[in-house]
Amino acid sequence: MNTAPTTSTAASGGYMDRAIALARDAAHRGEVPVGAVVVEAETGRIVAEAANRTETDRDPTAHAEILALREAARVLGAPRLPGCDLYVTLEPCAMCAAAIAFARIRRVYFGAFDPKGGAVDHGPRLFQQPTIHHQPEVVGGVRETACARLLKTFFAERRDGNG
Amino acid sequence: MNTAPTTSTAASGGYMDRAIALARDAAHRGEVPVGAVVVEAETGRIVAEAANRTETDRDPTAHAEILALREAARVLGAPRLPGCDLYVTLEPCAMCAAAIAFARIRRVYFGAFDPKGGAVDHGPRLFQQPTIHHQPEVVGGVRETACARLLKTFFAERRDGNG
Repeated sequence: MNTAPTTSTAASGGYMDRAIALARDAAHRGEVPVGAVVVEAETGRIVAEAANRTETDRDPTAHAEILALREAARVLGAPRLPGCDLYVTLEPCAMCAAAIAFARIRRVYFGAFDPKGGAVDHGPRLFQQPTIHHQPEVVGGVRETACARLLKTFFAERRDGNG
Repeated sequence: MNTAPTTSTAASGGYMDRAIALARDAAHRGEVPVGAVVVEAETGRIVAEAANRTETDRDPTAHAEILALREAARVLGAPRLPGCDLYVTLEPCAMCAAAIAFARIRRVYFGAFDPKGGAVDHGPRLFQQPTIHHQPEVVGGVRETACARLLKTFFAERRDGNG
């Protein structure tokens, strides 16, 4: 009998694989490849998923996490999602980290670390700020190699003019 | 002949008055009263305006600034708005400050200071982080008393059960 919680390493990897697939699709549209999935922790159901759409939508706020959080809030009919976990292929930036806190997300799993733009393990380390109103649990480095490779390939191809 | 730039103190106050009016409407809908206006700096034209809609829309990201930035990007057809200024009645939080940086907003005018939730003059002081990719000019305290009073009244009425 499999009694492993939905947040076991294996399950986390599965949701992250879905986020990676979303990120890959985004790259094909010329978007920076970042994907995000919101999961209802109790049931393991994927409530919302999204990839980066800043260029497609011409929207500076259209990061994968923001779009997934907005969709999850819409689906569940509440601006706060304390029963949900977020899986995202890249360490969230300050905008997304703050949105995650506003949404009261239970746990954040992220893939690649982002020393330049990240705001969880880098920069302002938002969840460690004394003024933060909600501190989710954080698991970094899930499927790190695959998540990072996607971004590296995307930017390398752009530099080579193939993007 | 009036050659004053659109960013003179008087003009700033005018746009802030509009943001205050939007915030007041939000309070009547039971939303935390924060209003924002995006202005095309060269022409002085209001490109977008919004008030907080987190409860109405059940959207944790529906802060006045985020909504106004998204609308401005839609109107101008670009995810970056380097020719625009933002007027907002409250010091932006980390989510909104990061969105302002992503949108490449030229100048931010804000009304009330927010020692608890603000991320410009308080907390992570996002625009002063070494990893920030765009640093707008910032003018704080525009119509400060009126902006702060609106919030104080709103929360006092809520505590008294009249909200």
